[in-house]
Amino acid sequence: MRVVRDPREMQDLALAKRRSGARIGVVPTMGFLHEGHLSLVRIAKREADWVVLTLFVNPTQFGPKEDLDRYPRDFDRDCALCEAEGVDVVFAPETPEVYAPDHTVYVVEDVLTRGLCGASRPGHFRGVLTVVAKLFNLTLPDVAVFGEKDAQQLRVIRRMTRDLNFPVEIVGGPILREADGVAMSSRNKNLDPASRRIAPRLYQSLCAARTAYEAGERRMAALRERVLETLGDLSPGAVDYLEVVDDVTLESCGERADAPVLIALAVQFPGVRLIDNIRLD
Amino acid sequence: MRVVRDPREMQDLALAKRRSGARIGVVPTMGFLHEGHLSLVRIAKREADWVVLTLFVNPTQFGPKEDLDRYPRDFDRDCALCEAEGVDVVFAPETPEVYAPDHTVYVVEDVLTRGLCGASRPGHFRGVLTVVAKLFNLTLPDVAVFGEKDAQQLRVIRRMTRDLNFPVEIVGGPILREADGVAMSSRNKNLDPASRRIAPRLYQSLCAARTAYEAGERRMAALRERVLETLGDLSPGAVDYLEVVDDVTLESCGERADAPVLIALAVQFPGVRLIDNIRLD
Repeated sequence: MRVVRDPREMQDLALAKRRSGARIGVVPTMGFLHEGHLSLVRIAKREADWVVLTLFVNPTQFGPKEDLDRYPRDFDRDCALCEAEGVDVVFAPETPEVYAPDHTVYVVEDVLTRGLCGASRPGHFRGVLTVVAKLFNLTLPDVAVFGEKDAQQLRVIRRMTRDLNFPVEIVGGPILREADGVAMSSRNKNLDPASRRIAPRLYQSLCAARTAYEAGERRMAALRERVLETLGDLSPGAVDYLEVVDDVTLESCGERADAPVLIALAVQFPGVRLIDNIRLD
Repeated sequence: MRVVRDPREMQDLALAKRRSGARIGVVPTMGFLHEGHLSLVRIAKREADWVVLTLFVNPTQFGPKEDLDRYPRDFDRDCALCEAEGVDVVFAPETPEVYAPDHTVYVVEDVLTRGLCGASRPGHFRGVLTVVAKLFNLTLPDVAVFGEKDAQQLRVIRRMTRDLNFPVEIVGGPILREADGVAMSSRNKNLDPASRRIAPRLYQSLCAARTAYEAGERRMAALRERVLETLGDLSPGAVDYLEVVDDVTLESCGERADAPVLIALAVQFPGVRLIDNIRLD
């Protein structure tokens, strides 16, 4: 396994690889890898001949009051995990190599990013799309794999890929969960014990909505109510948002969930914001 | 020579070409080709093994009151000219194939686009960068050639290429001029006779500034004054902007032109806006 720090070196490698006819798979991550990430690597390994895992904590997708400085990091452990999974290249650039001091170009999306995390985290998706466009150009994937935990991100990246015509197939990987249902996330490590005890309630509440849906409930307000009543009192956390939206447009879908819906949930715990979601179809 | 209409077919061709090891050169145009465009094709032919000329009148770079509908078109003549120059592919997609009805992703630049045409034409560079990003992803160039007449555009595209890490070398082609000095432009055709008679004064005024500069004049105000006094009364046209800016940052460079400067000029004639520029170093 090769570790590459220099973006130019990464791009030259990828250009040569593409020229060789190999199918390139990329798994973009912010590191501090867990089983969820590794499941994405396994998907990439199935889909491609040569797998690059990118490891970059992207400052432009963090707001000024967010957890950029506290975001967990463990580079040596990440590399060992990648090596064990058969990753071919870990691309781990430093911030000044990724963003020129006078960088001024961004990729923006105007509609899918209005609600959910886009509303709670102004500028977040501008940062995500910009860095993903950069990583696509540096690693030249035929296929890129993203986790479905970041449901809005996955849809926004698919939209960018289509709208800017990147020659990349976007594959979503299912959410992996801890034994108690908490969606795997690098941020879980930063939960205080009280918050960690409450965290399973996010998924429990989404499952309660699914149970109601499977029993025929289609009224949005009722589905929403099922989530809220299962969530109960989350203190020291609090709901940031809970939305039942059209799975494709991410827009509120009126009073009835007749097309596939996404229930998306964000809970702010002290210093850690967790998200989770479920798709009902 | 092959004419391609379908973006997916173009991308598949380009992917195969890149895989073959050929160096791809692209000349993005809005068609109605003149000698200026053909000079860019000749540069691309020198720099690359396989040359694609893109021909697309991009609606997103025109403002609502601009000349999108009047922009001149002559597809058959354009193809004949390309064939004669040894272009390998003319890529001429239709608008609905380029922009999905629900397209929502744009590329934006925040600093270089503030002044000059960016100030006169809100949204113009957002449209330019978005379509150039799309064309880069559809044609996968190793080198792309743009004319220096659009001086701000060239700098903004270079910036995008750097900031989004496109694996593309951007080459600028010198301005070509009619015998009377008017910069070649597809829009010249739409000038009424009175405006066409006055049009040579744009370049004459820039040359007057150059003469002063070469004689040692470095005061910005004096250089600007030389341009204005040579321009004189342009009616039925009028100056849209006249700026003396730093050649790299496109920012006003104080009182003295000690670093290389760009003098950029836009004149609005009835229904036709002309631009021209000169670099002083």
